Amino acid sequence: MALGDTWREGPAKQAIVAFVERTTTPGSPDFIAPADRIAVFDNDGTLWSEQPLYFQFLFALDRVRALAPQHPEWTHTEPFRFVLEGHPEKALAGGADSLLPIVEATHAGMTTEQFAQIVRDWMATARHPTKHRRYDSMVFAPMLALMQYLRANGYGTWIVSGGGQEFLRAWVEGIYGIPPQQVIGSYAGLKYAPGDTPTILKTSQPELVDDHAGKPVGIQRFLGRRPVMAFGNSDGDFEMLEWTTSGRGPRFAAILHHTDAEREFAYDKGAPAGALERALAEAPARKWVVIDMARDWGTVYPSH
Amino acid sequence: MALGDTWREGPAKQAIVAFVERTTTPGSPDFIAPADRIAVFDNDGTLWSEQPLYFQFLFALDRVRALAPQHPEWTHTEPFRFVLEGHPEKALAGGADSLLPIVEATHAGMTTEQFAQIVRDWMATARHPTKHRRYDSMVFAPMLALMQYLRANGYGTWIVSGGGQEFLRAWVEGIYGIPPQQVIGSYAGLKYAPGDTPTILKTSQPELVDDHAGKPVGIQRFLGRRPVMAFGNSDGDFEMLEWTTSGRGPRFAAILHHTDAEREFAYDKGAPAGALERALAEAPARKWVVIDMARDWGTVYPSH
Repeated sequence: MALGDTWREGPAKQAIVAFVERTTTPGSPDFIAPADRIAVFDNDGTLWSEQPLYFQFLFALDRVRALAPQHPEWTHTEPFRFVLEGHPEKALAGGADSLLPIVEATHAGMTTEQFAQIVRDWMATARHPTKHRRYDSMVFAPMLALMQYLRANGYGTWIVSGGGQEFLRAWVEGIYGIPPQQVIGSYAGLKYAPGDTPTILKTSQPELVDDHAGKPVGIQRFLGRRPVMAFGNSDGDFEMLEWTTSGRGPRFAAILHHTDAEREFAYDKGAPAGALERALAEAPARKWVVIDMARDWGTVYPSH
Repeated sequence: MALGDTWREGPAKQAIVAFVERTTTPGSPDFIAPADRIAVFDNDGTLWSEQPLYFQFLFALDRVRALAPQHPEWTHTEPFRFVLEGHPEKALAGGADSLLPIVEATHAGMTTEQFAQIVRDWMATARHPTKHRRYDSMVFAPMLALMQYLRANGYGTWIVSGGGQEFLRAWVEGIYGIPPQQVIGSYAGLKYAPGDTPTILKTSQPELVDDHAGKPVGIQRFLGRRPVMAFGNSDGDFEMLEWTTSGRGPRFAAILHHTDAEREFAYDKGAPAGALERALAEAPARKWVVIDMARDWGTVYPSH
């Protein structure tokens, strides 16, 4: 199959197709055995949008509002109060530590099955604050086409996301065609509860922050081998791309640069979500392809 | 393909074949979609032998002896002294905590690639103390045949072992045909070391003990869905079998009972490695199949 016309003809598309062809053509000096054809993808900002804030954070805010009636104390407890008063930016201002109570209240203390259902219910009803679309319709059509193209060429496609592993698993199989065992993300603890109907409970004990140096760690933990292709869009993906491209043999990495204020968003360094500076600056020297959204993509979101 | 004659005709073989046939025959009321055909296997005592001690522990003892010249202080430091004096049972007597210095000295402080090479070198040269075979020739021929049979019927085969994940990954792909991303095991921390030649270092910080309640946790963490078939041999597998068989729809679990002192070993309750009591007692009520090694297996080890 061809990569398709969601990608405009140009250097990014050419580089991808050329790499896949030389690594999958029997007899090519760069041929890669099917078992080693592993492509890893960041999620936020690489497979779907991430503005004005990571969508999982918008999910958490929606959950705080939904759970507030059961927590009257939240109206006078920070950081919940900020959210309920319509100022989530104040909750964010305190950094990751001050957000922990929100993560705990919205992501822990339930079974994995309950959490997946909560995420799916939210996905079916929530709308993006400015685009007014379902969040799962804000995935990138060219990246869906790319993942299909890679799978058709024997590549395994894996997510390596700073987002929550169980949050992702609740919806990515249907949208991306990626099964739960190929989803690497950040995670807190799990606890087995035996009995007549055993369950697995989500705890709030942090275990892996799958960002920056946590990405190669997550890759080794779950995959146990080094990928040959990696796609990211922010400095949080730097180490994943570095790890991927420093292996022997043919390697490919690409950075998606958000240059399209009209169809999506335009941002790079200093952005509150998806800040991109070092990876973009070092891309030429490291031979990482830069995908320029405005230039390289014929379509951004799926039309259906 | 058929399950093959390493399995003698009898109730265990019949139960396995009947389950696979009814879950893979289109139109069968018990048909399971290929994506959900997941079979999990304990390793020690289920896929290979585990007497007189877990083989990974024998590996660690061999490593202590090999590294001793670089550690003259070990001749008067416990637990190393016990090993070097030929009394490893004294090192064991103190329990898991007192073994930690041995685990640390033999499993941490090197890159994942260095560790894998150490394991492969050991596997190529070490011999079992009483059977005088290579350890990787002490895998069970009927289980190799079973995994091939399951894969030929669309089942994914996964290891869920109390043994170390990186220890297993160093050799199971070649022996079992199971790729590294389908190996769930116990693990300590990993640390990314960036630079011109980035590496991933093994640390000694414990993260998952993949035994008892840790097995369903490891399954959820790595697989993200509940298996439909599970194979174990000890009470450490109880929770894995409980979790597997308490899901909806057709489920299968089996316990391998080591009853064959002549061809392998005979042991169950009270054994220092692979103690089996509760899982055997509850097997009939839970409809878990008991595989009786002496009765059900035509062959134990591969002949080649």
